[in-house]
Amino acid sequence: MSGAVLHIVGMGPGDPELITLKAARVLADCEVVAHFAKRGRPGHARSAAAAHLPGGVRELRLDYPYTTEVAVDDPSYLDGLAVFYDDAATRIAGELALGRRVVLLCEGDPFFYGSAMYVHDRLARDYTTVIVPGVTGMSGCWTRAGLPMVHGDDVLSVLPGTLDEPTLAARLAATDAAVVMKLGRNLAKVRAALASAGRLKHAMYVERGTMAGERIIALDDKDDDAAPYFSLILVPGRRRRR
Amino acid sequence: MSGAVLHIVGMGPGDPELITLKAARVLADCEVVAHFAKRGRPGHARSAAAAHLPGGVRELRLDYPYTTEVAVDDPSYLDGLAVFYDDAATRIAGELALGRRVVLLCEGDPFFYGSAMYVHDRLARDYTTVIVPGVTGMSGCWTRAGLPMVHGDDVLSVLPGTLDEPTLAARLAATDAAVVMKLGRNLAKVRAALASAGRLKHAMYVERGTMAGERIIALDDKDDDAAPYFSLILVPGRRRRR
Ligand SMILES: C[S@@+](CC[C@H](N)C(=O)[O-])C[C@H]1O[C@@H](n2cnc3c(N)ncnc32)[C@H](O)[C@@H]1O
Ligand SMILES: C[S@@+](CC[C@H](N)C(=O)[O-])C[C@H]1O[C@@H](n2cnc3c(N)ncnc32)[C@H](O)[C@@H]1O
Repeated sequence: MSGAVLHIVGMGPGDPELITLKAARVLADCEVVAHFAKRGRPGHARSAAAAHLPGGVRELRLDYPYTTEVAVDDPSYLDGLAVFYDDAATRIAGELALGRRVVLLCEGDPFFYGSAMYVHDRLARDYTTVIVPGVTGMSGCWTRAGLPMVHGDDVLSVLPGTLDEPTLAARLAATDAAVVMKLGRNLAKVRAALASAGRLKHAMYVERGTMAGERIIALDDKDDDAAPYFSLILVPGRRRRR
Repeated sequence: MSGAVLHIVGMGPGDPELITLKAARVLADCEVVAHFAKRGRPGHARSAAAAHLPGGVRELRLDYPYTTEVAVDDPSYLDGLAVFYDDAATRIAGELALGRRVVLLCEGDPFFYGSAMYVHDRLARDYTTVIVPGVTGMSGCWTRAGLPMVHGDDVLSVLPGTLDEPTLAARLAATDAAVVMKLGRNLAKVRAALASAGRLKHAMYVERGTMAGERIIALDDKDDDAAPYFSLILVPGRRRRR
């Protein structure tokens, strides 16, 4: 049983070179690789891991039950997710019970809006669990956009685009810098909130930052409100004199 | 002149294994390494770089003019810093003008409260500048503290401890999760703000996260208000059902 460890590994914003040395070492040493998948697609975390995994590694693909068929505020959505995470945790626990070294891949940094937290919360009491932090999606995006985000005593607010429009507008008006995550179908609402907060002019839209198909454009210049899963908005803080 | 590139490289929270593969590659390929130093000490970014730098690399040590002798709200402090950053930029530009590949090291992620931004702002127009994002200090800290920080539609506020107490208290009361950076001499004030916002009970204090001498303790259990440069406070968000 000496090998039974669950590593939850942050795989960074997308560019496979933006994983840490520790992530690469842990991947090279694992026996089972677990990863979330949408619509059966492996996702960038699994792709970035490929070069580091040992031959013959066991694979646990954790397929999300939904993509977008159920509304996020539908109670059956949350219930379905709870069942999904219970099942994912049970499958991973089965591997750990056999004494295996398991790695669960996570996009960006695991403890920053990561799905792996729900698995962590179910298993950390019973199994040795090690988290490897990663470069967040937002760091990858503001780097690629060439936007120094926060200086001096700037406040940064990280806002999920799932919040309602008045809440978003109030928070955008009251902060120095902001990142709006989880755009997807929320972009029209987020745009309206930025406008009423007077921040639209400084908003940058970043799609698939550091990945293939990256797109960086002032939100004001983007003509439609379509946004994929990997997209966010950056509003940089006040630039300081110095 | 083909080699003249300025790389600004995020060196992560402290653990030398938490730099990215890209950072390691860029370090191995540089001709000049520039880094900020306090009181003549090289700092953890320079230490973490050591294993990756080529033999015979040129070194530019950028010594901060102050440590804590001048108050931060003193205008002469800002003026002195402006002169310091002008001088740092001039020295780096001198190396770039000779066609050299220069790396400027930065703690954590460069565009997240990083001093290197002030050099970037002075040189990015005239020289090819590439930023390598890094794992932030806060990601290193919340990982080591075992604290999943933000779930679902939680809002995260990143607050410099240099803000005044009423501002800190109001922002702490109005957010789900918070990180208070730049503690140093501000800890007593930050503690009072957390108490009046009703968030003291959930505040975790992390000193030198992922580094030698790491210390992680509930703020309520910390008996004094001493805090070194590398310290911050974490208030995790609402834990979700799922
Ligand atoms: C469930 S959260 C996970 C965040 C991740 N744990 C991190 O540290 O970035 C997913 C959201 O992160 C943002 N995101 C992550 N990586 C991104 C990238 N490379 N480009 C654009 N947005 C990204 C998007 O807003 C996306 O909806
Ligand atoms: C000038 S800011 C630079 C932040 C850096 N660019 C980053 O991405 O974390 C310095 C502050 O970051 C925080 N910090 C950075 N690394 C830390 C660590 N390993 N442990 C505790 N605090 C840290 C402290 O609050 C410190 O005062």
